Amino acid sequence: MGDIRERIRHLGSLDKIITADAAAALFRDGMKVATSGNPLMGYPRATFRALSERIKKEGGIKIDLLCAGPLGSEVEDVLADVGGIRTRIGAIGGEKLRGAINRGEVKFIEGKGGQLPLQVKRGWYGPVDMAVVEAVGLTEEGHIIPSTAVYDSPEWLEAASAVIVEINLNRPLGLEGLHDVCQRGADPIPVVGNPLKRIGVPYFSVDPMKIIGIVVSDLADKPSGEGKPDRMGDEIGLHLVDFFHREVAAGRLREPLPPIELGVGELAGHVMRKIGASDFTNFRFHLPAITDPVLEIVEAGKVEWVSGMALRLTPGAWGRFLKDLERYKKCMVLRPVTICNSPEVIQRFGVIAINGCLEMDIQGQVNSSHVLGAKILTGIAGSYDFSRNGLYSIFVGPSTAKGGKISAIVPMVSHVDHTEHDVDILVTEQGLADLRGLDPREKAETIIRQCAHPDFREMLSDYLERAKKEPGHIPVLMEEAGSFHAKLRQTGSMKK
Amino acid sequence: MGDIRERIRHLGSLDKIITADAAAALFRDGMKVATSGNPLMGYPRATFRALSERIKKEGGIKIDLLCAGPLGSEVEDVLADVGGIRTRIGAIGGEKLRGAINRGEVKFIEGKGGQLPLQVKRGWYGPVDMAVVEAVGLTEEGHIIPSTAVYDSPEWLEAASAVIVEINLNRPLGLEGLHDVCQRGADPIPVVGNPLKRIGVPYFSVDPMKIIGIVVSDLADKPSGEGKPDRMGDEIGLHLVDFFHREVAAGRLREPLPPIELGVGELAGHVMRKIGASDFTNFRFHLPAITDPVLEIVEAGKVEWVSGMALRLTPGAWGRFLKDLERYKKCMVLRPVTICNSPEVIQRFGVIAINGCLEMDIQGQVNSSHVLGAKILTGIAGSYDFSRNGLYSIFVGPSTAKGGKISAIVPMVSHVDHTEHDVDILVTEQGLADLRGLDPREKAETIIRQCAHPDFREMLSDYLERAKKEPGHIPVLMEEAGSFHAKLRQTGSMKK
Repeated sequence: MGDIRERIRHLGSLDKIITADAAAALFRDGMKVATSGNPLMGYPRATFRALSERIKKEGGIKIDLLCAGPLGSEVEDVLADVGGIRTRIGAIGGEKLRGAINRGEVKFIEGKGGQLPLQVKRGWYGPVDMAVVEAVGLTEEGHIIPSTAVYDSPEWLEAASAVIVEINLNRPLGLEGLHDVCQRGADPIPVVGNPLKRIGVPYFSVDPMKIIGIVVSDLADKPSGEGKPDRMGDEIGLHLVDFFHREVAAGRLREPLPPIELGVGELAGHVMRKIGASDFTNFRFHLPAITDPVLEIVEAGKVEWVSGMALRLTPGAWGRFLKDLERYKKCMVLRPVTICNSPEVIQRFGVIAINGCLEMDIQGQVNSSHVLGAKILTGIAGSYDFSRNGLYSIFVGPSTAKGGKISAIVPMVSHVDHTEHDVDILVTEQGLADLRGLDPREKAETIIRQCAHPDFREMLSDYLERAKKEPGHIPVLMEEAGSFHAKLRQTGSMKK
Repeated sequence: MGDIRERIRHLGSLDKIITADAAAALFRDGMKVATSGNPLMGYPRATFRALSERIKKEGGIKIDLLCAGPLGSEVEDVLADVGGIRTRIGAIGGEKLRGAINRGEVKFIEGKGGQLPLQVKRGWYGPVDMAVVEAVGLTEEGHIIPSTAVYDSPEWLEAASAVIVEINLNRPLGLEGLHDVCQRGADPIPVVGNPLKRIGVPYFSVDPMKIIGIVVSDLADKPSGEGKPDRMGDEIGLHLVDFFHREVAAGRLREPLPPIELGVGELAGHVMRKIGASDFTNFRFHLPAITDPVLEIVEAGKVEWVSGMALRLTPGAWGRFLKDLERYKKCMVLRPVTICNSPEVIQRFGVIAINGCLEMDIQGQVNSSHVLGAKILTGIAGSYDFSRNGLYSIFVGPSTAKGGKISAIVPMVSHVDHTEHDVDILVTEQGLADLRGLDPREKAETIIRQCAHPDFREMLSDYLERAKKEPGHIPVLMEEAGSFHAKLRQTGSMKK
């Protein structure tokens, strides 16, 4: 327990150490349970695993699970597997949970980007019964030293009536100082000038009386990979690098480039690696999740600073991060989602927002969440805040899916997550469509010409030419706008 | 000219006085011309009228017209009438301009709410050739004292290479001090605490060398009315007042209510009057346009402060405003759209955003701009910023249109201006749908039950019940989602 005394410096809390099974016994049916993390790390594994085991044996418990972003399979899927989730509020990380939601077995309410924790604090979702947070230790005063995620924990810890802290021995105490914790108030967010300058404290403030259990865990991260660079990511990345060069040449951008946000996922990773490998340098990153490619660009010595709300590293990258921890602490800061994703800070930094998507349409609308308008994938999460408030709002994706049978460019997306007003640039492996200053007819022509796959250009142009003959500002044929999707549902392909 | 010397205190500018015809002669074909105002007031009438006359005679001139919001008929329609507008960038106020756009004769590019002037400054729309602003006078240093609109003039005056100032003798010099002018920078917007505390200067800074003409005008406002209270506005207003009472009782709101934003238009006016007549008091208003009902609630002694970017008063209300000018200057401030509509300030104030719309759907999406997805009315303007960033985002509208033939509640809106994430509450004369904390199936049921007109409830429920049988998170039938609109196009009615 020597190590534990180092980690739990608050002596009064030492007798709160309980087993994961004992923590699991503290949950009741119908509880609202809030946590933080992402699909790779930052969430409390042991407590939720034990809760899943308990539900498997006893049944009769369904919780509402809150986290603004997607969580890992070891929370979402282990609970969904035993029918332990009634409602998921935020976003989705686990495949099994996603299946249960799309089968109508579990309710899912998307969080409004970084505003979810604030809405919860206002009582919009009722009282929060339990917050469960991963930590590296407790300060002498009983405050919680965060692990790899700050995220929505500050609000959860304030809103919840009870708290379980899970100390993960795989996260070193040395992480202390990486975090900058504060809550939104009536004053401006004081992130100004140097983004690394701390505006808050390095811990989560919590009433120690609320902590009803401390679980010590040594569950390691599961192996995972973000894939190797591929042609698609390379080509999209090159289109973007070219675009940035043209913007610099036109005097609309200056070097070093403004801070960049890039969403998560395999394609985004490849795109970021390509941008990182370009002749641009002195990168600044302001993004929700700090991913492998971000770390790689830091390692290449090309990064000034990184501001995010959580680490999202594969085990290999996490190992390298730990080896050079002090170096990374000097150029990185983790803040709450309410600060990181705030329109105020995103606009002040002038962030270039680059996010992936499922579908784009010739009106410049983007679907990032629902397949055929119905089945959810993960939710829009941070793209909600970044695309609306970024200096540039850029969406990237392959021009086709399912081996070329599906066109990602359609007459009208089946679900609108980002309106035409929120989209400046669309990029596929085919090319880049710069929609700025174009009217709807010009937008449609540009998107078809630049982004659509050649196999679908004729179909799209045919639709557009006929739509242009109708009166109106936006060229649209309401009766046919969903025809690509209808064909897909009927024949398994959008092709003629 | 005695009066003029009082108004033009900058002696070097006196010899820049020219006739409106001479000002009109300064325009060239293809120019980008930026101005400010709204459909009732604040825009320079004489210069554009003279320009219209010149084009009528000479032809050969088409300009690109920039203003983030809609302008009056005396700018937009007099120019559209003579084919003088190539592109309108921002929003639409004039009926004739709207017709020309929907016939495809004039290009229209919607502005991204309060971000348009910032994007123009960044060069996204190319160089601005001319700014034309209405003023009450010039300071001794040659700065411009605004008239009834601050709006996007600060950015236009900086971006434009030449400036025409139109001094409207119908706007008294006494308006000086109502304005608070500044531009967005890299620091937080210092609107904190008392919103009446000025953060800028009471004038538009401008390089006097850029002023190429000063036009003196005495064109009065045209008669206009915002209509008398009607049943629709009364009922929607009462639903809202009830809702606010319930929120206060539940501890989610406190009195006095947070600052309120209410869009413009007849219905919004009626709704605001009803809220103003409720037992709530000590209102605060933070909204783009200060309208007649706002003035009436101030006159009733129920208002603490009003923060906006332009006055939008009918002649009667303007007369009353002038009579009590010093009183209004003590409780009102006009700021730039980039400040007023900024997510930063809207979120900091915690504004209750109430906006009108054309269509709502059972997913909770809102169409505020395009009839049948194609024909534009005015554009989304300020609702873009306020609904996304408001503490509550509320959309109001009648449940039917065209004498009951059209349901404003449809399976899927024909154009998405506000996504499901941006809409908390929907209100029609039928009732109020509180969508907070509901999943998509519950949202759909609630909207049909609370907001749809009884004539259409069965059709909507029938659609929903069948959609709920399909797999997925959102109940949708892609092939049928546009069926209400298709029926309308085919039969002139959405009814069976």
